[in-house]
Amino acid sequence: MTDTTSGKVPVVLLDLPIGLTATGVRQEFDSMGTVDVPADKYYGAQTARSLVHFSIGEDRMPKAIYHAYGIVKKACALVNQQEGRLPAWKAQAIIRAADEAIAGSLDEHFPLYVWQTGSGTQSNMNVNEVLSNRAIQLLGGTLGSQQPVGPNDDVNLGQSSNDTFPTAMHIAALDLIDRRLLPELDRLAGVIETKSAAWMQIVKIGRTHLQDATPLTVGQEWSGYAAQLRAALRTIEDSRQDLYELALGGTAVGTGINAPPGFSVKVAQQIATLTGKPFVTAPNKFMAQGSLDAMVRAHAALRGLAVAMMKIANDMRWLASGPRCGFGELKLPPNEPGSSIMPGKVNPTQCEAIVMIAIQVMGDDSAVAFAGSQGNFELNAMRPIIINAFLHSATILADGCEKFRTYSVEGTQLDESRIASFVNNSLMLVTALSPVIGYQKAAHIAEQADASGSTLREAALASGYVDAATFDRVVDASTMVGDGVGGA
Amino acid sequence: MTDTTSGKVPVVLLDLPIGLTATGVRQEFDSMGTVDVPADKYYGAQTARSLVHFSIGEDRMPKAIYHAYGIVKKACALVNQQEGRLPAWKAQAIIRAADEAIAGSLDEHFPLYVWQTGSGTQSNMNVNEVLSNRAIQLLGGTLGSQQPVGPNDDVNLGQSSNDTFPTAMHIAALDLIDRRLLPELDRLAGVIETKSAAWMQIVKIGRTHLQDATPLTVGQEWSGYAAQLRAALRTIEDSRQDLYELALGGTAVGTGINAPPGFSVKVAQQIATLTGKPFVTAPNKFMAQGSLDAMVRAHAALRGLAVAMMKIANDMRWLASGPRCGFGELKLPPNEPGSSIMPGKVNPTQCEAIVMIAIQVMGDDSAVAFAGSQGNFELNAMRPIIINAFLHSATILADGCEKFRTYSVEGTQLDESRIASFVNNSLMLVTALSPVIGYQKAAHIAEQADASGSTLREAALASGYVDAATFDRVVDASTMVGDGVGGA
Amino acid sequence: MTDTTSGKVPVVLLDLPIGLTATGVRQEFDSMGTVDVPADKYYGAQTARSLVHFSIGEDRMPKAIYHAYGIVKKACALVNQQEGRLPAWKAQAIIRAADEAIAGSLDEHFPLYVWQTGSGTQSNMNVNEVLSNRAIQLLGGTLGSQQPVGPNDDVNLGQSSNDTFPTAMHIAALDLIDRRLLPELDRLAGVIETKSAAWMQIVKIGRTHLQDATPLTVGQEWSGYAAQLRAALRTIEDSRQDLYELALGGTAVGTGINAPPGFSVKVAQQIATLTGKPFVTAPNKFMAQGSLDAMVRAHAALRGLAVAMMKIANDMRWLASGPRCGFGELKLPPNEPGSSIMPGKVNPTQCEAIVMIAIQVMGDDSAVAFAGSQGNFELNAMRPIIINAFLHSATILADGCEKFRTYSVEGTQLDESRIASFVNNSLMLVTALSPVIGYQKAAHIAEQADASGSTLREAALASGYVDAATFDRVVDASTMVGDGVGGA
Amino acid sequence: MTDTTSGKVPVVLLDLPIGLTATGVRQEFDSMGTVDVPADKYYGAQTARSLVHFSIGEDRMPKAIYHAYGIVKKACALVNQQEGRLPAWKAQAIIRAADEAIAGSLDEHFPLYVWQTGSGTQSNMNVNEVLSNRAIQLLGGTLGSQQPVGPNDDVNLGQSSNDTFPTAMHIAALDLIDRRLLPELDRLAGVIETKSAAWMQIVKIGRTHLQDATPLTVGQEWSGYAAQLRAALRTIEDSRQDLYELALGGTAVGTGINAPPGFSVKVAQQIATLTGKPFVTAPNKFMAQGSLDAMVRAHAALRGLAVAMMKIANDMRWLASGPRCGFGELKLPPNEPGSSIMPGKVNPTQCEAIVMIAIQVMGDDSAVAFAGSQGNFELNAMRPIIINAFLHSATILADGCEKFRTYSVEGTQLDESRIASFVNNSLMLVTALSPVIGYQKAAHIAEQADASGSTLREAALASGYVDAATFDRVVDASTMVGDGVGGA
Repeated sequence: MTDTTSGKVPVVLLDLPIGLTATGVRQEFDSMGTVDVPADKYYGAQTARSLVHFSIGEDRMPKAIYHAYGIVKKACALVNQQEGRLPAWKAQAIIRAADEAIAGSLDEHFPLYVWQTGSGTQSNMNVNEVLSNRAIQLLGGTLGSQQPVGPNDDVNLGQSSNDTFPTAMHIAALDLIDRRLLPELDRLAGVIETKSAAWMQIVKIGRTHLQDATPLTVGQEWSGYAAQLRAALRTIEDSRQDLYELALGGTAVGTGINAPPGFSVKVAQQIATLTGKPFVTAPNKFMAQGSLDAMVRAHAALRGLAVAMMKIANDMRWLASGPRCGFGELKLPPNEPGSSIMPGKVNPTQCEAIVMIAIQVMGDDSAVAFAGSQGNFELNAMRPIIINAFLHSATILADGCEKFRTYSVEGTQLDESRIASFVNNSLMLVTALSPVIGYQKAAHIAEQADASGSTLREAALASGYVDAATFDRVVDASTMVGDGVGGA
Repeated sequence: MTDTTSGKVPVVLLDLPIGLTATGVRQEFDSMGTVDVPADKYYGAQTARSLVHFSIGEDRMPKAIYHAYGIVKKACALVNQQEGRLPAWKAQAIIRAADEAIAGSLDEHFPLYVWQTGSGTQSNMNVNEVLSNRAIQLLGGTLGSQQPVGPNDDVNLGQSSNDTFPTAMHIAALDLIDRRLLPELDRLAGVIETKSAAWMQIVKIGRTHLQDATPLTVGQEWSGYAAQLRAALRTIEDSRQDLYELALGGTAVGTGINAPPGFSVKVAQQIATLTGKPFVTAPNKFMAQGSLDAMVRAHAALRGLAVAMMKIANDMRWLASGPRCGFGELKLPPNEPGSSIMPGKVNPTQCEAIVMIAIQVMGDDSAVAFAGSQGNFELNAMRPIIINAFLHSATILADGCEKFRTYSVEGTQLDESRIASFVNNSLMLVTALSPVIGYQKAAHIAEQADASGSTLREAALASGYVDAATFDRVVDASTMVGDGVGGA
Repeated sequence: MTDTTSGKVPVVLLDLPIGLTATGVRQEFDSMGTVDVPADKYYGAQTARSLVHFSIGEDRMPKAIYHAYGIVKKACALVNQQEGRLPAWKAQAIIRAADEAIAGSLDEHFPLYVWQTGSGTQSNMNVNEVLSNRAIQLLGGTLGSQQPVGPNDDVNLGQSSNDTFPTAMHIAALDLIDRRLLPELDRLAGVIETKSAAWMQIVKIGRTHLQDATPLTVGQEWSGYAAQLRAALRTIEDSRQDLYELALGGTAVGTGINAPPGFSVKVAQQIATLTGKPFVTAPNKFMAQGSLDAMVRAHAALRGLAVAMMKIANDMRWLASGPRCGFGELKLPPNEPGSSIMPGKVNPTQCEAIVMIAIQVMGDDSAVAFAGSQGNFELNAMRPIIINAFLHSATILADGCEKFRTYSVEGTQLDESRIASFVNNSLMLVTALSPVIGYQKAAHIAEQADASGSTLREAALASGYVDAATFDRVVDASTMVGDGVGGA
Repeated sequence: MTDTTSGKVPVVLLDLPIGLTATGVRQEFDSMGTVDVPADKYYGAQTARSLVHFSIGEDRMPKAIYHAYGIVKKACALVNQQEGRLPAWKAQAIIRAADEAIAGSLDEHFPLYVWQTGSGTQSNMNVNEVLSNRAIQLLGGTLGSQQPVGPNDDVNLGQSSNDTFPTAMHIAALDLIDRRLLPELDRLAGVIETKSAAWMQIVKIGRTHLQDATPLTVGQEWSGYAAQLRAALRTIEDSRQDLYELALGGTAVGTGINAPPGFSVKVAQQIATLTGKPFVTAPNKFMAQGSLDAMVRAHAALRGLAVAMMKIANDMRWLASGPRCGFGELKLPPNEPGSSIMPGKVNPTQCEAIVMIAIQVMGDDSAVAFAGSQGNFELNAMRPIIINAFLHSATILADGCEKFRTYSVEGTQLDESRIASFVNNSLMLVTALSPVIGYQKAAHIAEQADASGSTLREAALASGYVDAATFDRVVDASTMVGDGVGGA
């Protein structure tokens, strides 16, 4: 390979497919010495060390982090090439490898665990090593030689784990939010809105404190669910604002040491171009690296969704309770036999999954906030736990929204006769009498009906407080549900 | 008292100071019968019942809720008067009493506990009873007669606990945010910004993973603290948006039963006028009453501040550790003797208080989210725990900001000689050599220095990788701190 | 006053009632200088400083800590007297004052806040100052002179905040557990056991996944509640074990500096005698002062109770839902009108209070564990938040048990006809057919009945899988509830 | 195959290895109809349905649950055979398949997700289907025919998901505790005890509130760590007590319907025999199935360990901070390069992993308690989230203990000269003067030394409060560390 430091001599990258056919082990080195690594893997010494020291549980650093890291490395290589710090041939080799990482084609070479160094350095070095060796392969060099593309001096040029890892966190989080979570949440809200509209005239009994209350329509009730989801959606959208700010360019401690002036602005711009998202460089790098506050806030937005979904899923399973000895207003689609012992049993399993997902997200939210508070000086070394939790929460919420919608909400139907019979039996329609005869007399009627088991109408007429014509005019559930969803 | 239902006969309110001079007990009634109440209290039967049934611990419903309720009752009375549902004399009596509640002058008549009915009905009735009896007093009537101003039929006219209590929650929360929390937070951030500016040229050693890293300035480090607080402040400001939406007008279940059309819009407008805040009626009353999602979101914003403050307080107490055997870069003002047994000891007590406050807010945030998820149907019956936690969190954060600023941050000073000596001793300035001689050789120099106890310069020159002139030019801490706070 | 350092000259304590009649301020001093304190308070300079620096919110250090501290100071004075380190007259003066603290008679002189120094030093000094001045008063000395009884040199003799505060925490926690929580929990469990026994033959429909399942008896269902409470009770009892171990004698950092050999064993013994509880000295003082693990474990036991009570309270309110449109199996006593707008409404308010209490305890449990993890070196400086949370949780649980039992559980009744009609209507009695005709055929029958709205018997006979005689023999709810509470 | 219902005709199981060589799909049926399943998998219709409806995230039900389920199914088959409910040939086929499940050999046939039905029914049916088809294969039958061994009628005979799933939870949890967690925790505590013993005479400066305090020895400090771990270990051991109680025999709702009398006692006995653990049948099946309180308590014990480990790991990384600008008392083994940008940097990565693990366990503990509180009536339908969290927490704690011990604790060394120099410089040795000259004068000396930068000895002599001989006799760090670990 000719020296092409000038960047002017074109170097053709070899057309080699991804993969190493060697067997056994290969020697790789880092500043602490040499290490054997599997010959069919691109990674180097530091990845191998981490695999030994941190094989804890089954939790692997999410692949999404490495895809995002591909974008970071590509953007840096582009800027470094443009400004002459990397010759074009070297930059292009790195970029080709980075593109492969972005596409997920190098996933098997990123084996590290979540429970590792708190800065994510080992995952950054894993990326540096893999891209270095893949670039070396594409340039016809010797794997493990770190020549002509070094993991630290070239792939990591102008960077540190301390600024790249949080940058990759933001990119990965936003990708998942935009690509999966918001669309699924929007679809779920949409289906609920459709149901709400369809059922807007079906009068049902309201319940407060779990007790019978004044009527509303099924559509009104479901409009509340949709409104909760829409508000949660907006909050998640808003939480992206801080995530658009990238630490990249702060390098080791936020000062930007070893990165050239203007680097932070240019790489953020490059990442914006590559992703189509409005990324900018973080105005304060000491906050961007010393805290993970933006991630804590973003997870709080996920939690907001969990809180809303738990309420909706709980309402649905209670309203579907029965079939004979519960509320029984809703009929959820039976997707599977419900019991290994009770034949014919159908259970609200999608709702239960949502409730458990919501609880898990809330538990992880506690962990995220705790971890977020544990930064010290120029680094919050709790990054792996936070990005792992965030991507996990967003994934199970997105998938949960999809399954819940598809297998439960869309197929939910009403038992209209049961709904109507509740309205007819309820005593709380007495509330409509209150403005006419006063609260205390109305209460007396309701108590009499309850004690005697009579209907409200019977008790009202027996009380002498109201005549039949007035009762029939005033106590009409269909006129008690107001107009629309905005109250009086 | 003449019947003045028409509202046209002017009634002069008696000029009676607040207070009841009677002793012993008075009989009050509600729909369940009569109850003895202390004769020197304005409250009625339902308050008295609640005091018996819910004397749990020492947690009383925060007085701020009653002040906010005064605004709700006043606004409703104004609208009801305007639209002829309440005669002017009756409305004016209620309004006078409500104004007294707003001013805190009736506080002793609001004795109820936090752990009561989940809707807050008992506190709403407490307000209704007190305003009713105070209005009766002002109108020369008989206490406990519910005439001519009834707690349910007049003070609560067109309202329910289900819509008034969350309305009062929003008003009380916003008042505390605007009046106490945001100003104190702004002041704290301001002082930190002043410190940051003053110390912008003082070079110190950076630390990542608690280990020595490349240098930055003290001002840069503190700029990160300020940025964290400013971001937390913005998030709290943003969280107000959903709190401006009021449930009032939804009455029992969100449909607005027993409230006249247009009521919700008008009372929200009235409350906006009374408070000077941009309150509007909630577009969806079923969400506004069936969920407490807006409060969960607002508490998450408080938690964001707690997370940031914990980092700052921890940094400060670690940097002040010593005086002889710790980091010792900061000197916190000694406010009190630190130990009952170790003479002369000074401790970072303000920082510890902040850390504990932060943990408490995070714990309460878990409780708030949990409670927020437990709504059922047309009501989330977890209101008292949520408003109690919110007002508590906001209060201790606001007071904490004030004390921390006054008694710790403002008086914090630097030990500049110690700071300088750390910079001079550190090995991590080797990082600046990396672009010149490569990462691996630079690592070798650092390791040699560490092993031999020599200075970096000695080890560098001994290594032969760099000459003295280059070393002195490249390894200059003052040029390694970059420019400003935005990184490279 | 004669010099009685020898301890042999008897000094008669003056017979002065508690209280200071002086007005205005008095000068007190500590190692940092002099401070004005209110002349009618016993406390000194350090308490006064803390009141200025830490007036954060309304949270005051629980009085129970000061009562427990009285025991600590008394025990130390007794041992110091026995061993000749304090003359008898001085020790007796301290003991008299300590007895007054134990009795709560000095409560108003302990005004400090929770959010103070993390070691509790300020509260220890508050106690030292108050007992010093009260002893001085009893000995005819001059308040604020620290003579002849000094707060540090006499009242705190052989002690540090670092060992006394956790000792007081354990004493206060155990007192509350034994005196209030365990008895109230036992009473609640007892009432539930009585209900369970009374209702052991009433057959009701079971519910799993909220859906109708096979029958059980009401007594069996309630036996589960009682078993949960009994298990929670045992766990709380067991959690006392670690609390019996006292830090006292470790002084500043656990080594026992400035305390005489054997001090720790003797003061623990003395405290055991004074309290009648099996206190011992902690075998490892570095754990006892550097961690609060025993408190974290004890609070986890409280949380266990909260978890159990939430399930029970939720079951009760759901089973009481209605009266016409819910489960309606239980009738909870109506203690108060349930709604300000819906006349005659009755709500499960005691259950709601229990649910909120449970959530608060769980939230505080998170805070306690978090704080418990934040110790550093020889001190966990998160003591005030932990003891405050513990005493709060135990108090609201104890009071909650009492109110819940008195105002809800004891008066709960069954709607037997509704319970019976559910059993008769349910389809899940089909389970009994499963061993006879197989699961799949039984499932088919249940589905047919559900689809057609017929009874199980009708669908079973129509299916041809079973004849009437067999059906009537096998499908008999009263034989499907098994025997007792241990299952098959 | 001859009908061998009598159980007397011996049937030889075919000697077929595990595995299905068919390709494409096979039809399986359940009570809702037929479903295509992959021909190379043993599972049936309900597993296939669940895979469609619940493919949420990547969280699979832990394999340990299926291994434990193998024990449950084997124990039931044994008892059913003994009592003549299953013919021997059928029982033996089920037992062979169950043994394979126990060994993990059928793992790939258990693909279900965590977020499924809350009872775990789908995983129970997965086991029933796989064992049924494997038994059919071993008996030469037709896969998917459910003959001669049916998933519900034979493998699940006398059982329900409602009693088997919590039984499998307890078995799996205890296996992991006993086999992995307790031994690793014991080993870690042992190594710390060894370190403590080795360093028992090395005097170091103590620190409280992060500030210099009186001295102790390194061994004393580490004895506190060991004591914390031993206490956590005991708590985990104790938490097993409730886990030994098994729900099995309660079947659908706890009454034991469709299980023969005595079944619960016998299967528990059988499981005790198979596992060598003291399992017994739960005395109250309604608690055992309606709550998960025992799991909540057991997870709290895991959390106790997390809290202790966080303190220890934090202490270690702070004490190792430096190498030049921190505490620097400890030297942790450098396992890997610490920074991608700062050459030669070594970080406390094992400590950071432990801190993150601890936080994750605490977050999951919140989720477990929350889920534990959400039971309703005869079922707590939050089982999958709880067992998933429990097994995850125990696994990462066990692995974390192992890595932390191996790669950090064992290799930790002291910087004795730095430790000694801190002791010599500290001002807090003044505490030893307190009993001689009084607290206030001692405080004055310390403050003078601090202000002037002089040594304590210089300031003491300058003060005139003490002469040189006395000072040198009293202020001797080696005599200030007391004796042993029990304090004075």
